[in-house]
Amino acid sequence: MEMEGMERFSILCVTEEGKSEIEDMLAREGSLTIILNEHQLATLFCTPSNLDYLAVGFIASEGLLRSKDEIKRITVDDKNGMVWVETIDDKRQPAETLPKRVIASSGGRGLASVTHWRKVESQMNISTHDVFGLVEKFQHRSPIFRATGGTHLAALCDTSDILISAEDIGRHNALDKVLGECILKDVPTDDRIVITSGRVSSEILLKVARRRIPMTISISAPTDLAVRLASDWGITLIGFARGKRMNVYAHSWRVVAA
Amino acid sequence: MEMEGMERFSILCVTEEGKSEIEDMLAREGSLTIILNEHQLATLFCTPSNLDYLAVGFIASEGLLRSKDEIKRITVDDKNGMVWVETIDDKRQPAETLPKRVIASSGGRGLASVTHWRKVESQMNISTHDVFGLVEKFQHRSPIFRATGGTHLAALCDTSDILISAEDIGRHNALDKVLGECILKDVPTDDRIVITSGRVSSEILLKVARRRIPMTISISAPTDLAVRLASDWGITLIGFARGKRMNVYAHSWRVVAA
Repeated sequence: MEMEGMERFSILCVTEEGKSEIEDMLAREGSLTIILNEHQLATLFCTPSNLDYLAVGFIASEGLLRSKDEIKRITVDDKNGMVWVETIDDKRQPAETLPKRVIASSGGRGLASVTHWRKVESQMNISTHDVFGLVEKFQHRSPIFRATGGTHLAALCDTSDILISAEDIGRHNALDKVLGECILKDVPTDDRIVITSGRVSSEILLKVARRRIPMTISISAPTDLAVRLASDWGITLIGFARGKRMNVYAHSWRVVAA
Repeated sequence: MEMEGMERFSILCVTEEGKSEIEDMLAREGSLTIILNEHQLATLFCTPSNLDYLAVGFIASEGLLRSKDEIKRITVDDKNGMVWVETIDDKRQPAETLPKRVIASSGGRGLASVTHWRKVESQMNISTHDVFGLVEKFQHRSPIFRATGGTHLAALCDTSDILISAEDIGRHNALDKVLGECILKDVPTDDRIVITSGRVSSEILLKVARRRIPMTISISAPTDLAVRLASDWGITLIGFARGKRMNVYAHSWRVVAA
């Protein structure tokens, strides 16, 4: 039996009583090389599925793409893990915006140049009851994690349901796959919510902020920098959303009584 | 109270019963820009401590440095998150070896060019009892994780004790901090063991293989590619080491009865 994103291995299970051979499922890992207008942008290690979503999400997260209309052609080579994205404006080059993140600003702080973004103004809100409901649905969307323990999950939701979700061995990739699918299917992200199984660092929050998404819910912890940026950028940030409790780190006014 | 690597925040804890303001500790996140011989190598987001270890470990993991003797000078600017490393052979440039990982080989598989490394030949072994003992000690070495839930832990061990450990918001960084400290303090890594709290992907295994370390133990899951590489490179790979059980994915002959 082969399932997408995982593979069966024969391994040894060892306890104090001895060794026994068992069958185990492992998360698959492949590579993706992203080429934007003949310019090699990056090589990522990822779960080898939906490489077009991942490539488009990654390019958008780097600030090099905003909508489907800007894309002229996408060519996917699944076998070799390559995706070519051509934009209408084919002069678009990574060098234009990449320095912001890869090369630090004068002070050495890689995010200094984007911290004065305008705030996400969305007036959406959600009840605590609906947050707990979304988190419960979210946790049933991870077949690869359940079988392997080796992947992260990300999703886009409205206040009642999960609209799009993706699993990947990398938490950044899982979110980029969701955002890329939104772009390619013209799914609006205004007034919507991102949920992630992974920790929320500045890089995760930057991806959310670029798409002007007003709320991020994590099953895990945020960093102090992610909390500061969420506060500056007008994004509601929830962490440790498990069972019937959560911590709200920024813009808690969007979470209303059940 | 301020503790290294974390910071106190006032946040909202929300349950079905209502909201209450609580004090919470968050993992700190800063950036590190690494400059090797005046060449800007990378900007990482990390726990802002031991930046010299992280810079040296990162450079070594990229294949650009092997030992302390090759280093002429290290300059650290903690405030701005900058580290300059100058090598004796100052012509050493990232371009020489970086393409291997960042730019994929012809087939698009980023690791193709390193998969024919010679095997790690170490004849070391460890009893199942000692593995369980190391894992228990390991899990007591993570003050930031215990307070924040937001960091990973990595360590270098011999068969009975933990020699060096480091916490970081990134699992790659935590391991690079350990390997960098080994280089700067001339701590041998032959016949020793790496333990990590994080998942073992090809990139983690590549760092271990470069230092010729014969065994990696993870509390979490490996990917299929990491298992294949461990098998090819002669590295014993253990995952899900929790309590009194573990899975052995490659070269199980080094794990002997208690």
